[in-house]
Amino acid sequence: MCLFCEIKNGNIPSYKIYEDDVCLAFLDISQATIGHTLIIPKKHFDDIFSLDEETAKHIFDITRKISKNIKEKLNVSAVNILNNSGELAGQTIKHFHIHVIPRYENDNLKIEFSSNKLSPEQFTDLVNKIKL
Amino acid sequence: MCLFCEIKNGNIPSYKIYEDDVCLAFLDISQATIGHTLIIPKKHFDDIFSLDEETAKHIFDITRKISKNIKEKLNVSAVNILNNSGELAGQTIKHFHIHVIPRYENDNLKIEFSSNKLSPEQFTDLVNKIKL
Repeated sequence: MCLFCEIKNGNIPSYKIYEDDVCLAFLDISQATIGHTLIIPKKHFDDIFSLDEETAKHIFDITRKISKNIKEKLNVSAVNILNNSGELAGQTIKHFHIHVIPRYENDNLKIEFSSNKLSPEQFTDLVNKIKL
Repeated sequence: MCLFCEIKNGNIPSYKIYEDDVCLAFLDISQATIGHTLIIPKKHFDDIFSLDEETAKHIFDITRKISKNIKEKLNVSAVNILNNSGELAGQTIKHFHIHVIPRYENDNLKIEFSSNKLSPEQFTDLVNKIKL
C-alpha cells in the first residue's frame, strides 16, 4: 500500500492542482507554508535513484510551470524546490515526489547548511570519485 | 558579474564533475556535506521562474544521473535535491542552480518543516487560486 499510489488511483482524496498522463500535483496536507504543493509521477518510482529519464524530464518541467504559477497567483517572490530521496534525507513516503514550497517573511521553514573545509587534495580526490 | 557565469567561462576555477553543452556540475566550495554538488545551466537564468522548458528538462535529467552516481560512488543511501529560487528561499547567487546533497548519519544539515492547519474551505480556496 503506497499512499501516493492510492491518491493517484483516487482511493484517497486530495486537493489536486494539476494532472496529466504522467504526473499529478496536489496540496501537501501539512502545508509547511501556504501553497505547499507535491508533484508525483503516476507511475511508482521509489526515489530519484530509480526514476527514469522521460519521467524526470517531464516532472521537472511541470515543477517549473507550477512554481511560476504559484509565484504569480499567491504573489510570492520565492520558492524552494525539494526532493528527499532516502530515509536519511527525510523521505517519509517511498514514492518519488517534489515539494514546491512558497516562501514568506517569518515562515517557520528552516533549511540550514553548515560547511566542511576540504583541502585542494581532498577536493581533487572527491572529483575523481564522482565525476561522470 | 555573475559568479557562476565566471565559473562557466573558466575565469574562476571549480572542481568539475560533469559538463555538456547545456550544463555544468561542480563541487560546492562550502561542502554542506561531503560530495555536495551544484548543477547549473551554462546559459544564465536567474531562477526557476525564468528557466526555459528545454533547459529544465535537461538539467533535471542530469541531476538524476549525478544523484545516482553519487549514491554509488560515495556509498550513501540518501540525497536531498534542492533549488532555492528567490532571496526569501535562501538563494544567494542569482544564477539558477540545483544542489545535490548526499546525506550521512549525524551530518549537520537541517531541513525542518512545521505545518499549518487549513480547513477544507481554505484548501479549496487555495486550489481555486493555483490550479493549472
